[in-house]
Amino acid sequence: MKRACIVSVGNEILSGQTVDTNAAYLSAELLTIGVPVASSYAIRDEIDAIVRGLSLASADADVVLVTGGLGPTDDDLTRQAMAKFLGVELELHNELLEKIQKFFAARGRQMAETNKIQAYIPAGAKALANIGTAPGIMAESEGKLFFALPGVPMEMKRMFEESVLPELERFAGGQAVVVKKLKCFGAGESTIAELLGSMMQRGRNPLINCTVSSGIITLHIIATSEDNEKAKQMAEKDEKLLQNMLGELIYGVSEKSLAEVVGEKLTRQGKTIAVAESCTGGLLAKLLTDIPGSSKYFTFGWITYSNQAKISELGVPADLIQEYGAVSEQVAESMARAARKKAGTDYAVGITGIAGPAGGSEQKPVGLVYIGVDSENGCDTKRCLFSGNRRFIRLRAAQTVLNILRLKLNI
Amino acid sequence: MKRACIVSVGNEILSGQTVDTNAAYLSAELLTIGVPVASSYAIRDEIDAIVRGLSLASADADVVLVTGGLGPTDDDLTRQAMAKFLGVELELHNELLEKIQKFFAARGRQMAETNKIQAYIPAGAKALANIGTAPGIMAESEGKLFFALPGVPMEMKRMFEESVLPELERFAGGQAVVVKKLKCFGAGESTIAELLGSMMQRGRNPLINCTVSSGIITLHIIATSEDNEKAKQMAEKDEKLLQNMLGELIYGVSEKSLAEVVGEKLTRQGKTIAVAESCTGGLLAKLLTDIPGSSKYFTFGWITYSNQAKISELGVPADLIQEYGAVSEQVAESMARAARKKAGTDYAVGITGIAGPAGGSEQKPVGLVYIGVDSENGCDTKRCLFSGNRRFIRLRAAQTVLNILRLKLNI
Repeated sequence: MKRACIVSVGNEILSGQTVDTNAAYLSAELLTIGVPVASSYAIRDEIDAIVRGLSLASADADVVLVTGGLGPTDDDLTRQAMAKFLGVELELHNELLEKIQKFFAARGRQMAETNKIQAYIPAGAKALANIGTAPGIMAESEGKLFFALPGVPMEMKRMFEESVLPELERFAGGQAVVVKKLKCFGAGESTIAELLGSMMQRGRNPLINCTVSSGIITLHIIATSEDNEKAKQMAEKDEKLLQNMLGELIYGVSEKSLAEVVGEKLTRQGKTIAVAESCTGGLLAKLLTDIPGSSKYFTFGWITYSNQAKISELGVPADLIQEYGAVSEQVAESMARAARKKAGTDYAVGITGIAGPAGGSEQKPVGLVYIGVDSENGCDTKRCLFSGNRRFIRLRAAQTVLNILRLKLNI
Repeated sequence: MKRACIVSVGNEILSGQTVDTNAAYLSAELLTIGVPVASSYAIRDEIDAIVRGLSLASADADVVLVTGGLGPTDDDLTRQAMAKFLGVELELHNELLEKIQKFFAARGRQMAETNKIQAYIPAGAKALANIGTAPGIMAESEGKLFFALPGVPMEMKRMFEESVLPELERFAGGQAVVVKKLKCFGAGESTIAELLGSMMQRGRNPLINCTVSSGIITLHIIATSEDNEKAKQMAEKDEKLLQNMLGELIYGVSEKSLAEVVGEKLTRQGKTIAVAESCTGGLLAKLLTDIPGSSKYFTFGWITYSNQAKISELGVPADLIQEYGAVSEQVAESMARAARKKAGTDYAVGITGIAGPAGGSEQKPVGLVYIGVDSENGCDTKRCLFSGNRRFIRLRAAQTVLNILRLKLNI
């Protein structure tokens, strides 16, 4: 199996100004095509340091991907270092120079003299197209592949997908790799691992991988075969298997967020939603309106942070708050019902809880959250107890609402 | 000048499951004590790979910091690799074993047999205290310092601050380093660099560094001297200088967010605030209520995403929307005035705009945002035109409101 090494060039990484998300992106992408990353280096903007990095990397791997250092300024030295490492000169490519000049002309600007360096490529290497000004570089040496990509994440990702992936797939031995991603919410990583059992074994093909981020679990199905159609069939077969095993824990595919899935369902069904938030303080509405086009289904929201706001804006009876407390099933239900009535929407959410760090008691600890979801079928309520800090409790409460909505909208 | 190298151990980094924020944190912290990071390596969970990483790192630096691989499972191999690299055996420390047993006992759990390995330290090395179960390791070899820290960011940071920093300050030559951080909003990095001119020169002492994250610029003043009092004076002198040069662009010190500063001012002055949001869809309220204790000053919020909501909940005249459009100075003002009146707060914000990607026109392009801030002194409005994607426009709009509030509350 071929292995890769990533070299991230830039003082901004070594000074902690920039978190190296490029390395994480490339590592995840390379794994999905069956080229695992063996090691990864961050190197300062100095020619000799980069040359040393390239040499260490090529000792460790079959494919070396460098990011950063392709800009037009004096401290962009990847181009020069790559030529030095390969033992060749930099050559001016007139067609690249024209492209860069056109890039500036299209924006009504004059190309600065310093940008000219971006039209130079090590002799024998190939230029890779970029949406920015800096072309990437691909070179082959002693049976190993070297790529230099821009450090700007958007440019890097585009170049990786369009120019590097096809080359790597060929280099990795003509093996077809098909990847499917399933997104889950509602159970922890260990629960999902238990449910999947031997399907997650290391050497299995398709390989099934699990990553977690902010409570969302992503399952990667990575099918490898000499035949593309075969790989596709294998991935689809496992996708169905996982869907049977995990059922409603899976909320969507590829890069979808919970709010996106809820938004799509609302749009497709022509339904609308309103929210009345207390402890989440606007976070739920923010997640819903993060999505372009959300004005089609999201119209009204109330953030009734104080009791007074719950009473005056939503008409929650003062007695109810007095009797059960602002953090109660009754108040969550009352908020949801009032929001739906006032907004005239198909669905409405009421959410009240204790996000902490203060405000908890023995009966009502920090992390206690009541959710009410009202619809024409009546109001369902749910009591949740989240552990973690304020940030975590608020996020998990909002995600739980989105998950309830997603399941309600399945019907 | 002493230099450092960071070695991050863990397959989860090389598979892209985890973004290596530890390396960024350590790099930034090390820079502030005058020990810049020369390079940084991510290494897989294999003894020989870690030994090779340690050897590469020590060739490059005077201080090597390893994170990760100190857990109790089979793939935690940093301890063993460090012993191998140093050419010594691992030794059981009974006092560490007792500590780990107590850690579990305090939680009503039995220590698993596998945790015993965490009480082993390479011969001649020193254990560093941890809030988790895994002690850190400090060793000296051939005039170089080696630290092994846990991979869990919270444990790593605590150990770095409490045990590593004092050692490094001594090792770096008894030089006193005093760091001040100033947070700025309202101008770009290049404008601030221009305003500061030669103060940002590389070799200067105090060194003045600039980092940018989500529109917030942080200036680090790093004063180095043999005498602690002297370093403190130098840093304070520059702090005053910067405050004079940048004036109101500086909104706070150390790690403060804009919302925190606004919250502190509101609390101190006993003032309250309400928000009426359209394009930001709850984001502004979310930022305000992210702060613990925000219920003292934040009480009411409306998310009037549709025209109907603006009319029915805030009483914005339908004529006004008809005549000027929902995205207009007039509507922003009307929203702010209504919110203040209904909520009975000292301040209220109205915000309406076009976050995109759709909904823009030639007269009212995507990125156009009107902000109204009402108070007893009347309503001030501001027209902003932000460029960027939906996420960026919404964030910048909410930050701009917070910045306006911060300046109003200065008086």
